[in-house]
Amino acid sequence: MGRNVLIVGAGKSTAYLLDYFLQHAVDQKLHLTVADLNMDLVPHRIRSHASCNVIVLDVLSDKERRAAIKKADIVVSMLPARFHIKVAEDCISFKKHLVTASYISDEIQALDKSARAAGLVFMNEIGLDPGIDHMSAMQVINRIRAKGGKMLLFESFTGGLVAPESDDNLWNYKFTWNPRNVVLAGQGGAAKFIQEGTYKYIPYHKLFRRTEFMEIEGYGTFEAYANRDSLNYRQAYGLDDVLTLYRGTMRRVGFSKAWNMFVQLGMTDDSYAIENSYGMSYRDYTNLFLPYSPTDSVELKLRHYLKIDQDDIMWLKLMELDLFNPNKTILIKNATPAQMLQRILEDSWTMATDDKDMIVMYHKFGYELKGKKYQLDSNMVVIGENRTHTAMSKTVGLPVAIAALQILNKKITTPGVQLPIEEEVYTPILKHLIDYGIIFHEYRVPYLGYNPDSVAS
Amino acid sequence: MGRNVLIVGAGKSTAYLLDYFLQHAVDQKLHLTVADLNMDLVPHRIRSHASCNVIVLDVLSDKERRAAIKKADIVVSMLPARFHIKVAEDCISFKKHLVTASYISDEIQALDKSARAAGLVFMNEIGLDPGIDHMSAMQVINRIRAKGGKMLLFESFTGGLVAPESDDNLWNYKFTWNPRNVVLAGQGGAAKFIQEGTYKYIPYHKLFRRTEFMEIEGYGTFEAYANRDSLNYRQAYGLDDVLTLYRGTMRRVGFSKAWNMFVQLGMTDDSYAIENSYGMSYRDYTNLFLPYSPTDSVELKLRHYLKIDQDDIMWLKLMELDLFNPNKTILIKNATPAQMLQRILEDSWTMATDDKDMIVMYHKFGYELKGKKYQLDSNMVVIGENRTHTAMSKTVGLPVAIAALQILNKKITTPGVQLPIEEEVYTPILKHLIDYGIIFHEYRVPYLGYNPDSVAS
Repeated sequence: MGRNVLIVGAGKSTAYLLDYFLQHAVDQKLHLTVADLNMDLVPHRIRSHASCNVIVLDVLSDKERRAAIKKADIVVSMLPARFHIKVAEDCISFKKHLVTASYISDEIQALDKSARAAGLVFMNEIGLDPGIDHMSAMQVINRIRAKGGKMLLFESFTGGLVAPESDDNLWNYKFTWNPRNVVLAGQGGAAKFIQEGTYKYIPYHKLFRRTEFMEIEGYGTFEAYANRDSLNYRQAYGLDDVLTLYRGTMRRVGFSKAWNMFVQLGMTDDSYAIENSYGMSYRDYTNLFLPYSPTDSVELKLRHYLKIDQDDIMWLKLMELDLFNPNKTILIKNATPAQMLQRILEDSWTMATDDKDMIVMYHKFGYELKGKKYQLDSNMVVIGENRTHTAMSKTVGLPVAIAALQILNKKITTPGVQLPIEEEVYTPILKHLIDYGIIFHEYRVPYLGYNPDSVAS
Repeated sequence: MGRNVLIVGAGKSTAYLLDYFLQHAVDQKLHLTVADLNMDLVPHRIRSHASCNVIVLDVLSDKERRAAIKKADIVVSMLPARFHIKVAEDCISFKKHLVTASYISDEIQALDKSARAAGLVFMNEIGLDPGIDHMSAMQVINRIRAKGGKMLLFESFTGGLVAPESDDNLWNYKFTWNPRNVVLAGQGGAAKFIQEGTYKYIPYHKLFRRTEFMEIEGYGTFEAYANRDSLNYRQAYGLDDVLTLYRGTMRRVGFSKAWNMFVQLGMTDDSYAIENSYGMSYRDYTNLFLPYSPTDSVELKLRHYLKIDQDDIMWLKLMELDLFNPNKTILIKNATPAQMLQRILEDSWTMATDDKDMIVMYHKFGYELKGKKYQLDSNMVVIGENRTHTAMSKTVGLPVAIAALQILNKKITTPGVQLPIEEEVYTPILKHLIDYGIIFHEYRVPYLGYNPDSVAS
């Protein structure tokens, strides 16, 4: 087997991924091809590397894509998820392994049989979330099971945040990833999860008011709101009988309650276009969602509508965003409320050149062993180095790169469309990630869970 | 021209419609054919009438439908709106006039040219709402214009309610029409309207908290929440420059604030199925939307979540619905929250045999004439006679029947797909409706509007 690695897509999250391959190029005898539509995205240190070949590739061109895939031994697709399928189909045709950090789509899942038949590993969901969350959770869950324990509770939370040293606004938040996803977070249906065997549903307009808190030693308190479907991996993780299953998104304390103001006003709606959006002032935008008054100010109407006092931190958060400025304007035609809000937030929440980001992950494992109940909490914090070498890029890119090399070296061999939930996959990768500072700390805590017997009445 | 009237669909709202035709059968030399899939829907007094022929018709059968339409001179379709298009296409083929009480769909609108070419009147939206609202509004608007007035404000509200003599629950509401539409009211996008030249948007989860009040002499106070798109008829009514344009749905005061509890809980959501819905108790259903607690009751959790006191009328309204009963169960498989809520409400809000319904309509017209501002309010109240001869059936069916007869008698002749907004249409119909007790009362009120100069600061 050859040593040609094709990396399709050289966007934001690939800094660590490319570095990792190039660092191992000589000792692992790798030859890299980095393909992107936009050559400017590929930094000089990569382009000038002896073991690396950079090509312009339009992934929608069957000819270009097939020519590139044909020459590779393994393909790493870092494209947006919707483009994976074309790459994957070619990998079947030309018998190449494939690695992606994206959720397994139905189309990709449909290739499972062909991949198995051809002895190909199609490894997916091996970035951060999904990725490190799967691996770190399954490692602990399988350890508990190996001791004879029975899982009672699993909760898992991830957040992409600004690092404490760069955290200088009242929201304790900046955009470290796609801002649009942040503005639309939680939309598209009620959040669903299980607590103590009972199904629970939270509608979008209540989502940011039903948070729970968690502490990370050295980093203080965080909060989390529920993801849309916490039950997605119930079967994959073997947790069909678990009493509590909850997944969420982490923020600094107070973010969700403040974000809920936008939800309540209707500013996060992406389903319709605002009349005359082009050139609208921040103040007029805010006023769209408030009752008309000939006399009252937009400020007072908003405070009354949302029932907030003028010395409330919530009010200061809105003022910080300059939401009532009549002179700043939004220059987007036929914009939805969500698009306009995003524009306003980008003024305040864009990372400065020297800002660093932070990734946090927090798991809770509740289990029963020999009639007694236990809880283990596990968490990870990664701080970015700079604007290109972000914590996001590190935690997404490294597991992908390590997995690709493991496949090339026949350490990961099970064919078919895969998640990283098997020991052969997660053990070496998690071990290797420790060298890069991606480390989980575990804490034994009393099992409170949501158990009647352990809560004061 | 013959005198054969085909009425397709003999459901709920056709009692007055059929009676009207039969009353005029002799003097107008009409021959009626009433067609429905279900003969049982057609009451004995109709079936046994000398001038009336009742046939079983499956509207989806091209053969049956065409045979019936071919024999008619005018077709009245009282089917659910989605079935009109097949009937309308046949009316084009066989050159027959058509009357419906439904909104003009894009498909129906597309037949305009063919209808004009064939000299056919396709009259739509000529029931209550849409229907009487169009006619009564345009009559006043055109009167104001004829005097030289310029329209500043138009607001229009309609409600289908229980009559005062049958109003015996805390919600002052019963289902007098399709319960599903009531549960889903306001969903599918933000409500949009104009106040004093400013666009305003209300998200669904705030819709029932932004009501306005109105008085009707002899009937007390009502409230109204905004319809989804108040701007639909801006052009048709010639109100492109109007400063305020608002349409809404009327309820008794306090209904919307209480209904908002269901919205906040997420109970009106129709977008997903509840796990294990079949056989779920009312209490367990309510608990789906509340945080888990090992100790607290569903009652206390709900009061805390919605911030209501135990002596609040809101709480009594929930108790009246028996929402916390652990013994009453919902027997629907894969039910959505909205379907389950509907089941619970039907226990309390179904009309009793001797209950009567009530239709209310309220218009506000603001205008400027010779430099002065005026406002005219206009309202209508109709009380039902009994369970079949409801106010809804009267206000929907009579305008349809009268219009059909006017077309047959060549009093309404403008061909094409029509709304009842022209004088030739609304004047005789509104006049005739007075004989049936469908009467608008007008009141001059001071023009306050939303005008800065006329409101205390």
